[in-house]
Amino acid sequence: MIHSIQRKLLRVDLTERSIQRSVIDDEDVTIFLGGRVLGDIYLYRELLPSIDPLSPENQLIFGTGPLTGTSAPGSSRYIVHAKSPQTGLYMNSLAGGYFGPELRKAGFDMVIIQGKAEKPVYLSISNDNAELKDAGPIWGMDTQDTQQFIKSDLQDDKVRIACIGPAGENLVCYAAIISERRAAGRGGGGGVMGSKNLKAIAVRGTNKVQIADPEAFKNVVKRAYKDIAANEAVAKGFPLYGTLMAMPTLNDGGITPWRNWQNGGSDKAVNLYAQTWRDEYVKKDVRCSPPCNLKCSKLVLSREGPHAGVLTEGPDYETEYSFGASCNVTDQAAVIEADALCDKLGLDTISTGLTIAFAMECYEKGIITSNDTDGEEILFGRSELLPKLIHKIAYRRNFGALLSLGSKRMSEKLGKGSEAFAMHAKGMELGGYDPRGAKSLALIYACGSRGGCHKSGGAANGQSLRELSTGTDRFLNQGKAAITQSFRDSRMIADSAILCAFPYGSLSPETILSMLNAATGFHWSKEDLQIIAERGNQIERAFNVREGLRRAWDTLPDRILNEGVKTGSTAGQTVDLDVLIDDFYELSGWDLKTGIPKLDTLKKLGLHMIAKDMEMCIKE
Amino acid sequence: MIHSIQRKLLRVDLTERSIQRSVIDDEDVTIFLGGRVLGDIYLYRELLPSIDPLSPENQLIFGTGPLTGTSAPGSSRYIVHAKSPQTGLYMNSLAGGYFGPELRKAGFDMVIIQGKAEKPVYLSISNDNAELKDAGPIWGMDTQDTQQFIKSDLQDDKVRIACIGPAGENLVCYAAIISERRAAGRGGGGGVMGSKNLKAIAVRGTNKVQIADPEAFKNVVKRAYKDIAANEAVAKGFPLYGTLMAMPTLNDGGITPWRNWQNGGSDKAVNLYAQTWRDEYVKKDVRCSPPCNLKCSKLVLSREGPHAGVLTEGPDYETEYSFGASCNVTDQAAVIEADALCDKLGLDTISTGLTIAFAMECYEKGIITSNDTDGEEILFGRSELLPKLIHKIAYRRNFGALLSLGSKRMSEKLGKGSEAFAMHAKGMELGGYDPRGAKSLALIYACGSRGGCHKSGGAANGQSLRELSTGTDRFLNQGKAAITQSFRDSRMIADSAILCAFPYGSLSPETILSMLNAATGFHWSKEDLQIIAERGNQIERAFNVREGLRRAWDTLPDRILNEGVKTGSTAGQTVDLDVLIDDFYELSGWDLKTGIPKLDTLKKLGLHMIAKDMEMCIKE
Repeated sequence: MIHSIQRKLLRVDLTERSIQRSVIDDEDVTIFLGGRVLGDIYLYRELLPSIDPLSPENQLIFGTGPLTGTSAPGSSRYIVHAKSPQTGLYMNSLAGGYFGPELRKAGFDMVIIQGKAEKPVYLSISNDNAELKDAGPIWGMDTQDTQQFIKSDLQDDKVRIACIGPAGENLVCYAAIISERRAAGRGGGGGVMGSKNLKAIAVRGTNKVQIADPEAFKNVVKRAYKDIAANEAVAKGFPLYGTLMAMPTLNDGGITPWRNWQNGGSDKAVNLYAQTWRDEYVKKDVRCSPPCNLKCSKLVLSREGPHAGVLTEGPDYETEYSFGASCNVTDQAAVIEADALCDKLGLDTISTGLTIAFAMECYEKGIITSNDTDGEEILFGRSELLPKLIHKIAYRRNFGALLSLGSKRMSEKLGKGSEAFAMHAKGMELGGYDPRGAKSLALIYACGSRGGCHKSGGAANGQSLRELSTGTDRFLNQGKAAITQSFRDSRMIADSAILCAFPYGSLSPETILSMLNAATGFHWSKEDLQIIAERGNQIERAFNVREGLRRAWDTLPDRILNEGVKTGSTAGQTVDLDVLIDDFYELSGWDLKTGIPKLDTLKKLGLHMIAKDMEMCIKE
Repeated sequence: MIHSIQRKLLRVDLTERSIQRSVIDDEDVTIFLGGRVLGDIYLYRELLPSIDPLSPENQLIFGTGPLTGTSAPGSSRYIVHAKSPQTGLYMNSLAGGYFGPELRKAGFDMVIIQGKAEKPVYLSISNDNAELKDAGPIWGMDTQDTQQFIKSDLQDDKVRIACIGPAGENLVCYAAIISERRAAGRGGGGGVMGSKNLKAIAVRGTNKVQIADPEAFKNVVKRAYKDIAANEAVAKGFPLYGTLMAMPTLNDGGITPWRNWQNGGSDKAVNLYAQTWRDEYVKKDVRCSPPCNLKCSKLVLSREGPHAGVLTEGPDYETEYSFGASCNVTDQAAVIEADALCDKLGLDTISTGLTIAFAMECYEKGIITSNDTDGEEILFGRSELLPKLIHKIAYRRNFGALLSLGSKRMSEKLGKGSEAFAMHAKGMELGGYDPRGAKSLALIYACGSRGGCHKSGGAANGQSLRELSTGTDRFLNQGKAAITQSFRDSRMIADSAILCAFPYGSLSPETILSMLNAATGFHWSKEDLQIIAERGNQIERAFNVREGLRRAWDTLPDRILNEGVKTGSTAGQTVDLDVLIDDFYELSGWDLKTGIPKLDTLKKLGLHMIAKDMEMCIKE
C-alpha cells in the first residue's frame, strides 16, 4: 500500500513538561483509519485499567481524521478520547467548528496529553512549533473570555482554541471542552482537562492538508456536494432550522421526553419549535470551517424581558430537550440563556439540564427539600432557576455541589427510590429520544460505549425518524437490533473519517470510500471500512469490559423498563430490554451471558492483544 | 503659517444615507487646535439652539487631536461632542483605547454624524472608504458581542469599534459609547447614537499619522517620556493601581462620599482599596494603544462566590465610588460585576451607581416603597441588587424605567424633598470627590460645562490632592476659584491635543507646546495655547447660555450647600457656593449677575459670532 502522507503525532507530558513529535504507523492507519477508531486503539493501548479518570494517569487524545481540514463536506470536526470521569468508562466526544481543521493544517493528526501540570498552563501550537504557556491569568475565565485572552496573549486573532471554563477547572464530571461556541460536550472531557491543569489548546496552522490524489478527490467531493444538495430535507432544513427541525415530528410522536421523562411530548412544545426560534431569536446562520454549507448552527439573541442581551449559538434540539422539555420550561429565552451559560462556563447542556430535571422531580416527591437547595423551590417549569443552578454547578457551590455529581451519583446518594427516575445509562444522562416510542433506541443508550448518549451506539435522530415512519411497528421490540447495528457501524466510519453526521447521511458508501482513498492514497474496500467499524465497536467494548463492565451494566432506568409513558402518543409504552439485548449481542459478536466480546470475533478482526485481555476477563 | 498636513472631515448624513469628505480649515485649527476646542466650535456652529438631543437634529462629532495616533505619550484618546440628553446642554466625552488612533490612521480627524437612519446601521470606515452597513442582526447585542460580530462581519479582526449596547438603543439618557471595554461614558452619547439608529462605528486605518517635523517630534517625545518616568507617583502608581491608587488618601480625607453623600469616607473602604483589588482580582495590566506605558487599566477576574466568572476592565476609582461607596457596598466582587455589566449594556457607571444610591436613600426614607420597586427592598449595601437593577435600567424595564431617568428627573417626579439629595449638577450625577472637603471642587461641578462631572470644569483628583496637601485650608471657600481655573485651562489643552490626563500632569507646558508644534508644523506660543483654552471655556459656556443657562443653574444639591457631612474628617462641612462663584465668574470673564460671558471677553478671543449671540441672550 503506497501513499505519500506522513501522519504526525504530538505527545505532551504535562508532568515532565516535555513535548515529543512522532509518526503514526501506516499499519495503524490501514487497520484503524483515523479519528474515532484510531483514537480507540490508542486509548486502549495507552491507558492502564482501573485508573482514576481525574488522575495524571488518564490521557486526553485530540484526534483528526483523514478528511479533516480538506474540502470534503462536513470535514471540520475533531474528536477527543479519554477515560470518562462521568462513567468511569470509555469516552469520546466530537465537536465541529474550526479547531480540528486548524490542528490538521498545523500538521498534526493527533495530540496526546498526559500527566498533570504543576500550575495551570495552555498548549500553544503554531504549525510545527509547540510550547506550554502560563495559564495563571486565565484560570477562572469563562470559555469566551479565555479564547479572547489567548488570542490577545499570542497576538494572533486567527488562532483556534479548545478550552475549558470554570466547570472543567472545578472537575465537574460533565464539564465540556469548548471551541468558539461549540462543545465537545459529553462525558466530562472538560473535567479531565481541568484535572491536568490544562486550560486550553491554541492552534494555528497555515499548511494545506495534503491530498494523495487531488484530481480524483476534487471530483468525488464535487459529487458529494451534489448528493447533499439533492437531499432536500437536509439541504434546506439544516440551513433554516438546524437540528431543531425535527422537533414537531419527535414531540408529536411522543419521542421527546417531558418532565424528566414522565410525559411523551407536550402541547406546549410549540414554544420551543424551530419556527418560533428562527423568527424571534436567530440573527445569523453559522457554519463550521468552510467548506460546510449547511450552516446548521445559529447565532441567536434575546432582545426582550429578563433574558434580554443574551447571545449564544443554538440551542440545538438536545438543549431544547434538556432545559426545555425535561425541566418543563417552555420559555425559549430561558433555554437560550441556559445554553449560553453552559457554553461560557463549560458544561454539557444535556447532563446539566437532565440533572436539574432530576432534582426537580426529587423536590416534587419530597426527596430533597428547601433545606438542600439553599432555600429555593426547585419546581418543574421555574425557568428563573436555570441560570442560578447552572452557575452553582460550575463552581460546585452550595446546592450545586450535589448537582455537580450528575443524576446517577446524586440518586445513589439520595436513595428513596430516586434511582428509578435518574435518567442516565452508565452515569451519562440520556439524549432527548425516548426508546419507549422507538424501541431500537434502547440499545443506543443501554449498550453505547460511552453511556447514555444519543449518538453513542447508533444515531437516535435517524433511528427515531425511521421507526416513526413504520407506524405502530415502532413499539415492537423484536427485530430492532439490526437498525441500531447498522446506524452504529455507519456512524463509526463517519466519526473516523471524520465527517459530520448531517451531510454524511446523504452520501453513498461509494462516495465516502472514494473520498477516503483519494485523500489518503490507501485502497480500502467497502468491506475494509465495515471491518474497521467493527474493530471500533470491539475496542470500545473491550475497554469497558476491562474496566469491569458486564451484561448487567447494559441497562436503562426503571422508568423506561417498567413505568409507562404517562401522556402522549406513546402512553403506556415500556421497553423489553432483554429481548433487544439478546439480538444486539448476537449481531455484535458478544457473549450473551457476560456481554464480553467473543474471542473469535476479536481474532477475526485481527485484535489479538485485545482477545488476550478479554480471555483474562472471562476467567475472572 | 506653513504646514503640510491636510485634516480631513467625514460627514455622514444618516437620513440621506450620504457620506461626504471635506477638509478642516487651517484657520480653524490655528484658532481652535483640535479635539475638544475644535469640536466645541463645530458643535456650536452646527447645532440650532433648543433642539431635542434625541432628535435627528442633534449631531455626534467624533474627533481626534493633532497628537492622536502619534508616538506622544497618552495620545490614544478620542472625543465625542453632542448635545446631551442627560443635561440638555453641551456635552463632550472622551475615551482611551484604540479607536481614536485607528480613526486618525484611517485619515480622518473628525467624523460628523447627523440625521437618523431609517433602520439600524453601522458605519464602516476603512482608510478612505466609508459605508453604512446593516446593523439589523446586531441591534440588541451587548457591546462586547457587537464588537466580535462586526469583526467577523467585516472579516477583519483588527478593526476598532465604538458602539452602543442595549442602553443606548433604549435611549437611556446616561448610556455610554464603548470601544473595547472602555467608555466614553458621561453625558449620554450612547443615547444619541441610539436615537440615530447608529449601532457602531468600525474603523480600520493603516496609514501612518503625518508629522510635520519628525526629527524634532521624536526628540521632544523622548523628553516627554523621561519627564513621566521621573514622576514616581505616576510612573509607578498607575501601572500598579490605576486610578484606584488615591482612594486611601481620598477616603481618609473625607473626600470619597459614602451612602449617597451622607458620609465622608468609611472604615469599610479598605475592601475597595487598590491593594485588595490587585491581589485578588487583577489578572493583567491593560494599556491603551501603544505607546502608552502607564497601563492604568486592569483586566480583572472574579473567581469565587456568586460573582465568579465575571471579567471586566476596572473598576476605576469612580466606579468603586459609585457602586461601592455611594451604595454602601463593600463587596469588591459585586462592584466588579456591576462595572462589567455597565460596560456590556453600555451605561455610564457613575450615573448608574449614583441613581441607584439615590433610589436607596429614597427607599430608606419611604419616598419609594416596594410597590415602586417590583417588590425589591432597595437598601444601602444590598450588593445583590446591582446586576438586577442595572439590567432593568438598560432595558427601561419595570422599576428600571424610573431609574433610567437619572437622579434629577427621578427626584422631580418623586418630590417629597428628594431633590435635596439627588446628587447631580444640571442633571449629571457628581463624580466621587466631595467639595465639602476641598472647596475648589464645588466649581468643577457647579460651573462645569457638561454638568456634574469631576473633569468637567477642572480636575477633581488633582485638585483634591492639592487641597488635601494644604491641611485645613481646604475648608476655606475664599481663594479657591483660581485653583479650578488653572486646572480647567490645563485640561482644555490636554483634551484638545488630545493627551491623556495621567501622563499629561508630568509634562511641562514647554514640552506640550513643542510636541504640538513639531507634530503640526504650526507655531503656537504658550500664550496661544492659553487663549485657545479660554476660547474653549467661552464656547462651551455660550452653548449652554444659548440653551437658557444663567447663573441660577450653576448650583449644587442642597445636601452639599446646607447639610453637613455626617461622618469622617469633613464632618459638618458645607459649601458657600456664592462666594466661590463670584470669584470664578470674575476669573472667567462672565457677568456676575447672569453668568453670561462678557462681550469684551469674547471679542478679545476673536469669538465675534458668539459675541453676537450672547448679545441676544443678554437682551432676552
